Amino acid sequence: VRALWLEDRRLIFREDAPEPAAGGEAMVRVSCAGICNTDLELLRGYYPFTGVPGHEFVGVVEASPEATWLGRRVVGEINAVCGACAACGAGRRNHCERRSVLGIRARDGAFGERLRLPAANLHLVPDELADEAAIFVEPLAAALEIQEQVAFSPGQRVVVVGDGKLGQLVARTLALTGVDLVAVGRHRAKLERLEAAGIATAPAACVPERRADVVVECTGNSEGLAFALKTVRPAGTVVLKSTYRGEATLNVSALVVDEVRLVGSRCGPFAPALALLAQRRIDVGPLVEARYPLSEGLDAFDHAARSGVLKVLLTP
Amino acid sequence: VRALWLEDRRLIFREDAPEPAAGGEAMVRVSCAGICNTDLELLRGYYPFTGVPGHEFVGVVEASPEATWLGRRVVGEINAVCGACAACGAGRRNHCERRSVLGIRARDGAFGERLRLPAANLHLVPDELADEAAIFVEPLAAALEIQEQVAFSPGQRVVVVGDGKLGQLVARTLALTGVDLVAVGRHRAKLERLEAAGIATAPAACVPERRADVVVECTGNSEGLAFALKTVRPAGTVVLKSTYRGEATLNVSALVVDEVRLVGSRCGPFAPALALLAQRRIDVGPLVEARYPLSEGLDAFDHAARSGVLKVLLTP
Repeated sequence: VRALWLEDRRLIFREDAPEPAAGGEAMVRVSCAGICNTDLELLRGYYPFTGVPGHEFVGVVEASPEATWLGRRVVGEINAVCGACAACGAGRRNHCERRSVLGIRARDGAFGERLRLPAANLHLVPDELADEAAIFVEPLAAALEIQEQVAFSPGQRVVVVGDGKLGQLVARTLALTGVDLVAVGRHRAKLERLEAAGIATAPAACVPERRADVVVECTGNSEGLAFALKTVRPAGTVVLKSTYRGEATLNVSALVVDEVRLVGSRCGPFAPALALLAQRRIDVGPLVEARYPLSEGLDAFDHAARSGVLKVLLTP
Repeated sequence: VRALWLEDRRLIFREDAPEPAAGGEAMVRVSCAGICNTDLELLRGYYPFTGVPGHEFVGVVEASPEATWLGRRVVGEINAVCGACAACGAGRRNHCERRSVLGIRARDGAFGERLRLPAANLHLVPDELADEAAIFVEPLAAALEIQEQVAFSPGQRVVVVGDGKLGQLVARTLALTGVDLVAVGRHRAKLERLEAAGIATAPAACVPERRADVVVECTGNSEGLAFALKTVRPAGTVVLKSTYRGEATLNVSALVVDEVRLVGSRCGPFAPALALLAQRRIDVGPLVEARYPLSEGLDAFDHAARSGVLKVLLTP
C-alpha cells in the first residue's frame, strides 16, 4: 500500500509499504492526517522509529472486532496499551510499560492509506465536525492534559511560551478558563492568529520576570525553557509541553530556593477535546496552513518544517 | 560580641563582632545553635554572604517590642519579610521579594551570642522540649514543607535519597504518614539510625527503577538527582530538598514523555514541627553528633563537614 516510510532518519514515499495486519484490532482507512512537531523530530532522530509515521488522523473504520464501529468516522488515542502492567492497573494507561504508540513507537502510523488501532482507542467524530477540524483532536487533547495536571483558577497569571502548533492550541484551551493569559512568540503571522482568537500576546522582553503563576513552555528549545524559568513566580509552576533535543541544563538550586514546580506533560483526554471542537468553542480553521496528497508527503514535510508554518495536512 | 564571622568564604571566630541592633525587632540570647549543610555550602561560596552565619537556634528573648516575649524560650522562622510585596500579599511570605534570611542573606545569624528577628517570627518552645531537640525545629519544618506541597496517601511508595541531616528528618516525618517508605544512603552508621527509628533502608542498587510514586532528593549532589529521576515512576513526583552547587543537566524530554513532576522545596511550617517534637513522635536525640563551644566553632565546622557526620551543635 501507499505510505510515507521513515528509516534511518530518512523519509520516503512507498507504493509498496506493508499492509497493516489488523489482528484483533480495528482497521481504519485514513481520510486526513496532520504533521506534528514530533514527526519532524522523529526525522531528526529524536527516537529511533522505523515504519510509517503519523499520529494525528481522522478516518473511517473498515474492519473491527466490534461491529458497531464499522463505517464510523473516528479519531484515535495513540497509545496502545497492555492493560496488565502496574501503570495500566493504576489507571495511567498512557504510561503503559509495554505500550506501542501510533507512528512513534513499534506501530505504523497515519501517513498511509490505512492504520490499525485497538477498538478501545477509537472515538466517534460527531457529524458536525469536519475532517480538517477532527485531526486536531489529538493535539488538543495534549493541550487539555495541562488542566488534568495543574489546577487553574480565574485571574491567575498564565504565560504560554511559543506560538507554534502546540502553543496555539494550549493558548486557546487556557483562554477558556478565565485565567489572565498572555502568549509569547516570535512569528508575526502566528501571533496575529492568536490575537484574532482574542488572546493577548506580548514580546518576550515585555513580560515581567518572576510574576506568572503558571508558565507553559511549548517551544521545545532551551531559550524557551530559560525564559519560562525566568518568568514564573516563586512557588509557581512551569509546564513542559514539548520534548527537547538532547539534554538541558538547569539551575537546580534556583528551583529549590524558589520552590518552583516543573511538570512534564504529554498525551491528554480525547473526549473533552472532541466536545470543545464540536461546540465550536475552539476554532482550529486558522491553524491549517496547507494540504498535500500523500504522494507529495515529502514536500508536505518540507513545508511543515519551515519557520512560521502551522498545521500541514496530508490526504491519501 | 563573640561570634563566628564569614567573609570571602573564610570563617573566623571574632571577639569583636558587631553587636546586633534590635531596631523594632526582638533580641534573642542564643542558647544553642546547629550547623546545617547550608552553612557548609555558604563557606564554599554557594551564596555571597558576609556576617554571622547560622539559622538553626533556640534562645531566650532579652528584648522585644512585645513584652509578652520577654524571658521566653523561643525558636524563630528565618525569613524576615516586608509584608507588602506581591508574595507577602499572596500569603507566600517565605518568598518575600525583599526578605532577609537569618545567617544566609543580609541578616546576621545564630552563631553568636545574640541575634535579632522580628517578633512575628518567634515561636514559643514548650517546657518539655530540651534545647537540643528544639534546635531541630527549623530543619524539621523544612522536612514538613514537603507535605504542604505534595499530597501523600497511605501505601504510596516513597523513596528518600540521602541519609544525612535532612534525609534523616524527611524520612522520620514521612514515616508518620503511613506511606511505604524506603531510605537510601551510603553511610552505615546513618542508615542504622534510620533503622533504629523503624525506617526501612536499602542499597541504591536494590531499589527498583521507575516504581516510586514520590522520591525525595536530599543529597544535593548530581548522582542523587540522577538516581531520583531513575527511581520515580511515570507521572510520579521528585521533590528537590537540597540545593546544588552549580548547574545540573537534565534530560528534559524524559520528564515530558514520563510526565514527571519536579518540586523544589525549601522552608516549612514551624508549628507542626514543634508539635511533633513536643509529642515525642519524632526522636532527634540520635542525630546529635557533637557539641562545641562557640569559641571552638571552626573545629565544629570541620567536624560537621566530615563524611558521615550528622548534627553538630554550638553553644555560646
